[in-house]
Amino acid sequence: MSDHVVIALDAMGGDRAPKVVVEGAAIARKSIPNARFLMFGDEAKLAPLLAEHAALAGVTTVRHTEKQIRNEDKPSAAIKSGRESSMRLAIDAVRDGEADCVVSAGNTGALMAIAKFVLKTLPGIDRPAIASVFPTISGESVMLDLGANVQCDANNLVQFAVMGEVFARTVLGLKQPTIGLLNIGVEDLKGNEEVREAAGILRGSDLPIAFKGFVEGDDIASGKVDVIVTDGFTGNVALKTAEGTVHFCTSLLKRAFASSLISRLGYLLARRAISQLRSTMDPRRYNGAMLLGLNGIVVKSHGGADSVGFASAVEVAADMVVHGFQSKISDDFERLKGTQEPDRSAAAL
Amino acid sequence: MSDHVVIALDAMGGDRAPKVVVEGAAIARKSIPNARFLMFGDEAKLAPLLAEHAALAGVTTVRHTEKQIRNEDKPSAAIKSGRESSMRLAIDAVRDGEADCVVSAGNTGALMAIAKFVLKTLPGIDRPAIASVFPTISGESVMLDLGANVQCDANNLVQFAVMGEVFARTVLGLKQPTIGLLNIGVEDLKGNEEVREAAGILRGSDLPIAFKGFVEGDDIASGKVDVIVTDGFTGNVALKTAEGTVHFCTSLLKRAFASSLISRLGYLLARRAISQLRSTMDPRRYNGAMLLGLNGIVVKSHGGADSVGFASAVEVAADMVVHGFQSKISDDFERLKGTQEPDRSAAAL
Repeated sequence: MSDHVVIALDAMGGDRAPKVVVEGAAIARKSIPNARFLMFGDEAKLAPLLAEHAALAGVTTVRHTEKQIRNEDKPSAAIKSGRESSMRLAIDAVRDGEADCVVSAGNTGALMAIAKFVLKTLPGIDRPAIASVFPTISGESVMLDLGANVQCDANNLVQFAVMGEVFARTVLGLKQPTIGLLNIGVEDLKGNEEVREAAGILRGSDLPIAFKGFVEGDDIASGKVDVIVTDGFTGNVALKTAEGTVHFCTSLLKRAFASSLISRLGYLLARRAISQLRSTMDPRRYNGAMLLGLNGIVVKSHGGADSVGFASAVEVAADMVVHGFQSKISDDFERLKGTQEPDRSAAAL
Repeated sequence: MSDHVVIALDAMGGDRAPKVVVEGAAIARKSIPNARFLMFGDEAKLAPLLAEHAALAGVTTVRHTEKQIRNEDKPSAAIKSGRESSMRLAIDAVRDGEADCVVSAGNTGALMAIAKFVLKTLPGIDRPAIASVFPTISGESVMLDLGANVQCDANNLVQFAVMGEVFARTVLGLKQPTIGLLNIGVEDLKGNEEVREAAGILRGSDLPIAFKGFVEGDDIASGKVDVIVTDGFTGNVALKTAEGTVHFCTSLLKRAFASSLISRLGYLLARRAISQLRSTMDPRRYNGAMLLGLNGIVVKSHGGADSVGFASAVEVAADMVVHGFQSKISDDFERLKGTQEPDRSAAAL
């Protein structure tokens, strides 16, 4: 890593690209010391946007390509025929050491497939996972996997636990992050075979991990543990359920305040407190899902994110660079070797 | 069914039994015309409680037993050694035609196991499911399974869809309830094999069911469909995640209003609107999970429910009786025969 943080951007990924990408980068630049951007995309479209952001333009290099991955492209097709796409070139820049990390708001399946194909997984990790930070009553937690792996065996879950722990320690800055396995009860016998076996491995492991056993759905928002580990199906449903429920609550609140003149006046008086509340729960603050377990830092922005949201995703990627996430996760997987069951194929049944 | 609705109560089940059970029954009695109660439990404890509720006592028969199922009892042990328990006797009363339905706030696993053992599943249903109604932006929806079946095959999910549809039509009073299968994306190729196969069966089925395909976690609180179908692991996590998130939102709101004198004044002005909001989201209103697919109506109250919550569970059970849920679900499973795949064992792989 040089003194600069070099961030590769898939400038053509996302519902409102490249406008949101350029504006998001302009916002993120202000909070990332020594940021440099490598933007991959259509120069004719990027030039007028960059012209509006002189400070950003001063630290940005545009690499022209007219090709891009579309939302409807299948992952396998994206790998084969997307070699000159903005997404692929941005990931290639991380592999080639030109960039420290890459951010894309494009097709999630294609991003995961290309990133895995180009960067490969870290030694000791069978499958990368998608992770995200979210707000809780007591602060912030991280959950993984959020959809990369529909079915997971016990060893996948154990690896996710280690990846999540390293992330919480290095990027969230927690000294001894606590880990919980998502289940439908806290008793040992609850749940499916995979989570029970993963719990057994984590309890028996020599790693200095603060494994707290099983947690339930309502422990996610309470912040009972710092890292929630689960398979990609359950994690995706849980995260989206939480997002939908926050939207439900704010809708009801809006309706309640609009219901009478008196309550509207009440809203006016309380509006500072309420806007603070809204900012705590603002999904844009938590935009930026990390693809963990790869030889390189890859962050996915929500496709529909606005420039503030995209800036958060860029900041997440830069944070991981600055805190040396990659070297720390490699160290931990070195240590993990030998603590896993010797016959991994049997455990993976 | 006689003119009365006869409700069997496991008077000893739940964290604060039998007090909450008696007080809950007293509340429910007022809203259920012609309610009669059969309370199973310790007469010495029930008598003084009933003495405080003369109107309830007038429509209640106590059946004495000193035995009860404890929270730590395993389902198999509960079946074997719990023959004289308040829970078992209350379920027996439904089997014997003495009661129209049963409500318990006791051990969920034991309740499911005993109910299945005593009442058996309805013809055409392989496994019962736990279902619950919850509030959404557009009204109310029902979700199942919520934890009875950790792993489900495609046919289980199809059966849950039919059970949920009948419930929404008869008890929620919807003319043509819409059904969605919970998944991690709406495209055909998303998710695991079980949900994809279940979607295929539901799309090809001759049943007059309004199947809307896949829904995602954020569609739960939005009320996109009236019935959400999923396996017991995902459903349990989703429901508890939603509950936890509502708690998170109300905690933040409370904190926001308490943050300054001005916002406290705002709260005072808006408090009527806010208490309406609180009542919409009050989990006590939605207490009462139905065990669907059995030869008899069984409702589980949350173990920690207060008397208002327990009353909701009793009202859910009475509603199912009054709306003839059992005969309608039997009719629908008659019609379902022949629409399922001929080789069910292969589909269940």
